[in-house]
Amino acid sequence: MNALYRNPTAPIEARVRDLLGRMTLREKVGQLNQRMYGWDAYRRTPSGFELTEALYAETERFAGLGALYGLLRADAWSGVDHATGAGAADSAALAEMVQRHVVGESRLGIPALFVEEVPHGHMALDGTVFPVNLAVGATWDPELYEQAAAHAAAELRARGGHLALVSALDIARDPRWGRTEECFGEDPYLASRLTEALVRGMQGNPGDLFAPDKAPVVLKHFAGQGATIGGRNSAESELGSRELHEIHLPAARAGVRAGAAAVMAAYNEVDGMPCSGNRALLHDLLRRRWGFEGLVMADGLAVDRLARITGDTISAGALALSAGVDLSLWDEGFTHLEEAVERGLVSEESLNAAVARVLRLKFRLGLFERPCAADRLATAPTTLAALGRDLSTALARAAVTLLHNDGGVLPIPSTATRIAVLGPHAATTAHQLGDYTAPQRPGTGTSVLDGLRRLAPPGVEITHARGCALTGDDTSGVPEAVALADAADLAVLVLGGSSARTPETGFAANGAAQQTGSEMTCGEGVDLAGLRLGEAQYELLRAASVTGTPAVVVLVQGRPHAVPEAADLTAALLTVWYPGPWGGDAIAEVLLGHAEPVGRLPVSVPRSAAQLPVYYNHKDTEYGAYVDDSAEPLYSFGHGLSYTTFAYGPPRLSGLSGHTVEVDVTNTGERRGRTVVQLYIRRLLTPVWPRTLELRAFRSLDLAPGECRTVTFPLGADQLAQVGADLESAVLPGTLEVRIAESARAALDAVPVLFRVDQNFTAPDATPL
Amino acid sequence: MNALYRNPTAPIEARVRDLLGRMTLREKVGQLNQRMYGWDAYRRTPSGFELTEALYAETERFAGLGALYGLLRADAWSGVDHATGAGAADSAALAEMVQRHVVGESRLGIPALFVEEVPHGHMALDGTVFPVNLAVGATWDPELYEQAAAHAAAELRARGGHLALVSALDIARDPRWGRTEECFGEDPYLASRLTEALVRGMQGNPGDLFAPDKAPVVLKHFAGQGATIGGRNSAESELGSRELHEIHLPAARAGVRAGAAAVMAAYNEVDGMPCSGNRALLHDLLRRRWGFEGLVMADGLAVDRLARITGDTISAGALALSAGVDLSLWDEGFTHLEEAVERGLVSEESLNAAVARVLRLKFRLGLFERPCAADRLATAPTTLAALGRDLSTALARAAVTLLHNDGGVLPIPSTATRIAVLGPHAATTAHQLGDYTAPQRPGTGTSVLDGLRRLAPPGVEITHARGCALTGDDTSGVPEAVALADAADLAVLVLGGSSARTPETGFAANGAAQQTGSEMTCGEGVDLAGLRLGEAQYELLRAASVTGTPAVVVLVQGRPHAVPEAADLTAALLTVWYPGPWGGDAIAEVLLGHAEPVGRLPVSVPRSAAQLPVYYNHKDTEYGAYVDDSAEPLYSFGHGLSYTTFAYGPPRLSGLSGHTVEVDVTNTGERRGRTVVQLYIRRLLTPVWPRTLELRAFRSLDLAPGECRTVTFPLGADQLAQVGADLESAVLPGTLEVRIAESARAALDAVPVLFRVDQNFTAPDATPL
Repeated sequence: MNALYRNPTAPIEARVRDLLGRMTLREKVGQLNQRMYGWDAYRRTPSGFELTEALYAETERFAGLGALYGLLRADAWSGVDHATGAGAADSAALAEMVQRHVVGESRLGIPALFVEEVPHGHMALDGTVFPVNLAVGATWDPELYEQAAAHAAAELRARGGHLALVSALDIARDPRWGRTEECFGEDPYLASRLTEALVRGMQGNPGDLFAPDKAPVVLKHFAGQGATIGGRNSAESELGSRELHEIHLPAARAGVRAGAAAVMAAYNEVDGMPCSGNRALLHDLLRRRWGFEGLVMADGLAVDRLARITGDTISAGALALSAGVDLSLWDEGFTHLEEAVERGLVSEESLNAAVARVLRLKFRLGLFERPCAADRLATAPTTLAALGRDLSTALARAAVTLLHNDGGVLPIPSTATRIAVLGPHAATTAHQLGDYTAPQRPGTGTSVLDGLRRLAPPGVEITHARGCALTGDDTSGVPEAVALADAADLAVLVLGGSSARTPETGFAANGAAQQTGSEMTCGEGVDLAGLRLGEAQYELLRAASVTGTPAVVVLVQGRPHAVPEAADLTAALLTVWYPGPWGGDAIAEVLLGHAEPVGRLPVSVPRSAAQLPVYYNHKDTEYGAYVDDSAEPLYSFGHGLSYTTFAYGPPRLSGLSGHTVEVDVTNTGERRGRTVVQLYIRRLLTPVWPRTLELRAFRSLDLAPGECRTVTFPLGADQLAQVGADLESAVLPGTLEVRIAESARAALDAVPVLFRVDQNFTAPDATPL
Repeated sequence: MNALYRNPTAPIEARVRDLLGRMTLREKVGQLNQRMYGWDAYRRTPSGFELTEALYAETERFAGLGALYGLLRADAWSGVDHATGAGAADSAALAEMVQRHVVGESRLGIPALFVEEVPHGHMALDGTVFPVNLAVGATWDPELYEQAAAHAAAELRARGGHLALVSALDIARDPRWGRTEECFGEDPYLASRLTEALVRGMQGNPGDLFAPDKAPVVLKHFAGQGATIGGRNSAESELGSRELHEIHLPAARAGVRAGAAAVMAAYNEVDGMPCSGNRALLHDLLRRRWGFEGLVMADGLAVDRLARITGDTISAGALALSAGVDLSLWDEGFTHLEEAVERGLVSEESLNAAVARVLRLKFRLGLFERPCAADRLATAPTTLAALGRDLSTALARAAVTLLHNDGGVLPIPSTATRIAVLGPHAATTAHQLGDYTAPQRPGTGTSVLDGLRRLAPPGVEITHARGCALTGDDTSGVPEAVALADAADLAVLVLGGSSARTPETGFAANGAAQQTGSEMTCGEGVDLAGLRLGEAQYELLRAASVTGTPAVVVLVQGRPHAVPEAADLTAALLTVWYPGPWGGDAIAEVLLGHAEPVGRLPVSVPRSAAQLPVYYNHKDTEYGAYVDDSAEPLYSFGHGLSYTTFAYGPPRLSGLSGHTVEVDVTNTGERRGRTVVQLYIRRLLTPVWPRTLELRAFRSLDLAPGECRTVTFPLGADQLAQVGADLESAVLPGTLEVRIAESARAALDAVPVLFRVDQNFTAPDATPL
């Protein structure tokens, strides 16, 4: 066979053109479909796996297969577990089996893309589970996250997967939303830096070809899904264009600039235009203005949802394709694109452009040369797993955030010889994982109780009672727990929520939880009006606090729950988000002072749902408070205590042309520690109404007791750009303050340095936003 | 003097041009200023009034005076009361005194505009207080409101006032906002019809000249102020353009089409652009696209607030004038327009255009011919007052909304011979009035206790105890009240909130409440996160309900407070909003069955703040509920029970070309009653994502028991138009359902009739939206 498209040395564009020219309309349509649930493609047999009639039918229907979703997905929804699914040892073989079939069914030998969920590690049996995005946001550590992302990509590829679906673009603006855990936080700058790290880590440097241990990323979701009304999943977003550009688009833009291979169009609409049918968003902005050349995938069944306004799924498919969607997920609409083209609902040019994008990605992955992954296993699975555990624990450790610490009750002093470890999270790892996780093998992971037992000094007596369940108001276990607290020197209460799907969970057609299992308080489809923990947990906290034994509360959660009591009733309060399987180790290390608490809040913590929204980067309006409550959050964005203290000097302009700002930071305490130096701007003269503060740079700094270091930040486009009247981001003339502090709240009181951008300003060393 | 501008028979435009040509820059600037608080212009003396040095200084500064705000305003902020201010008998003389001074100080003899607050009646001593806008919204009765508006205008003009400031444009999208009471409700269609009624009533038919008993209206606020984040007063609104056009602009457009003389630019910004500095809003949309030729006034100190982004008040004034503001209120910025013109910050053409608009209004009012109002008193003050009371009571009666009525406990049966009237609202009119009301003369108005005592049949024993205060958790009075409830056949609990400003209230520079008096739970500056009544009121309700005596709860309130208990613990529940001074009569009439309950909810009533927003006309997305709460309101928009019942037949298309829809409505109960027939549309095929329902017509219908009538609605532009891609409102091709029902909730279950708009559709009898 001498076809050009088969020549690995030919330019990819030439191969795409050549192949496209040989394809029938039906074959092209097949490339844009990703209709099957991957777990329906195979069946476990005593000797391995066999392919199903469902797969045969699907590959026959389109003379091949464009993409297959979730071949390795395992969870309560797919019903895949260790008895039925593919683990680290045999999934590459399963993938190979499916791929051989697909290639064989395709007249032109076109392999399939295997698309997998990798939201915080590959959501497959034996995949390393990392802390959820909100915990990643709390690390403020893009470098560490980049390593974890690289690891997840290597695992994915070693298992035969290709394309990684990763939440990164949703900005957490309403904690009632059950998917808050999938966000890097409320801030566009922090999310942008972490999205870049994700793309760099998974894909490596931008380039034509992907290395064998790198995976193209589908950044989801585009756009505005973090600000749907009432925090309701996939509801409408009423946002204006400027709000969208200032808050919800920067992470996408950063990801695109880092070379992201694909983005996923979100379920929601923005101001009347559903993302999957929004040409202004997908074409005019993403492709034309931003120059994005990658793939646009629709969210699951999002194309068919367009039938609500088009009348039927055929025209829904045509609308989505015309708007800029290339690849559909589970929809009926895209299976009828042949008819849509024939009826003139969409042009064949649009179709060809979409097919070309799918094919281009397959060529970039080298799938025509090496359609199967088996030959790529560079690292032994056990080594990979050990590396994964280390990285996951490191992220969990870096995410532990100390919110208050009265009288320095933490780290646990050596005088505390009796520690009561209480609460529904204390002795289980079941709820540490977050949504979108595969079943774990028994014995995987460590609870806080495990961690404390392992790491506490010899002679320390550790007792435990659960006290109550995560949800509900059954307080029958409280007295036992209180008795233990009463008898102890210190009580550690591990409270919080859960996104753990169970066999009792009911699911919507797209896998979102619908009827929740008894203990779900978070996750996709699990929106929470009141932000409250189960009421029994408050009773446990109240009862434990009256013993007089100092109480340390650790909140394991996927969103900032409203626990205003925690500030009053506890000696110390930590949030660890969903820290992953080995969270118990990480938390115990911090509690005992083996590690410093270095996490910082990536979201503002509200006092109650009634005061929402509370994000720090609101517009700067004269506003006081509600009559019945403060309008300020309980804890500010960026907040997080250390076991030592730091002093920040006043910032000063520096550099030859005054285009950098520097600040002296001193460790004023008696322990080594790390501070996250945060640079905020506050615009004074500006053509549009400014936010009170905008995070525009940050850097972590390790300091020995008494040590002072100078931190220098550039003042470039990343720091200064704003969204102008034309909705383009640019450095516009104006005046602003630069404030450097340990949190957004502290920045309000910090001494600013004034910076003036004049007409002729050019950012000297700007990295593009 | 033969100057053209003095010739009353010359065309107004010619007079304006002539006068403008004679004015100095300083005189022009004076016309755009409205800097003084009117109550600082005079002082009461033993024999009448004397003018102040403050007025002399102000008129000297600008060689005249453009406008004077609040000469007759009386309230806790102004400090004006019956001892110091002007009442019905002497305010015309005061106005004349001031006007003579102004005209005398003006080289060209230009009189001042007297601008007064008339939000629900003239906010002056002896001014008739009408129910607040939210109560007006509950009447669904534009005709009745038009009469009230006409009355208020007549009172204003009889007292020497000219221009009426009236809230009409704010749409109540977040009940946490303290100014919710100033909104006609959550719906743009209902607000549009009431805004038209307001303009018609106050101004009369559009025309060049205003009749002596008509007053030009300043419609406030423009735009989007009802959707600021968190319901926080004058905070930012993040709304997109479509949301703005669909929800927040229709009332303004309706008011402009009805001929409104002026609009007030709002405090808030929309998506980054402050309304007072927003040329796209004030010029491109309002003046150019809508053809508005009237005056744009800025809200109090809103121009100076622009200094936040311009750096100083001079450039803030220049920005506001360039954007389209003509007349400022209290600002420093507009006093420096002379310098701004000289420095080139704004053109003299812009200035001239603004001055021309001010002068035009003065000519239209006939102020050059009759600068003083004294000669216009056509109706005797006592007659006017009696008419006002009748109209105010009629509005209050029409606003009484029956939310539930278990077992028909209402109307109060003749078997109930002992009635306990309880609660903090029961025996006082102090909190029935709402914000923006002048002090009342002792003895004005009727409480619910007054009304029931007057109207109950002879022999009925009526007892009363307050039980508790409006706010706080002091329940010491509850036992006494419960004892009365226990001894009674029926307990009427009059609960609720208050916008009553007291001498203890603290005020911001613009008159918004800042430190609230002890009992304020609503009003400008009084935003409420939790939507809760004072906790003692819940205790009173709970305690009264356990007596077993049927409890009827009447909620007197300026926003929908969250009282989920009211549905469970009461036999009947009514909301009467702030019904005005004679609300007690109106409420008693309905309780006793002398009048029917005909009010319908103009806002959805939430279960709690945690589930906000709950407006009925949200986008149609697949959304279930929160895990911990319903996403549905406790009571739906449009809901309101009668003492009888109605059956609605299926709607059918009718008319020659099928451009009307009709429905048969039958009174299926045993009393005469009134139903508000509500027509909702639900779009199926549409270019933009539709709302679940949109109210597009309504009509009240009185029916005798057993009577059936056919109601016919046109299907014209008012019913069919939508905001297209170009943000213009137009009838676009598509398909929609028409549903006719008693509430938005009922419309979801109603049988629809399908209506198709094809390419060639022309609305046959459309009144423009």
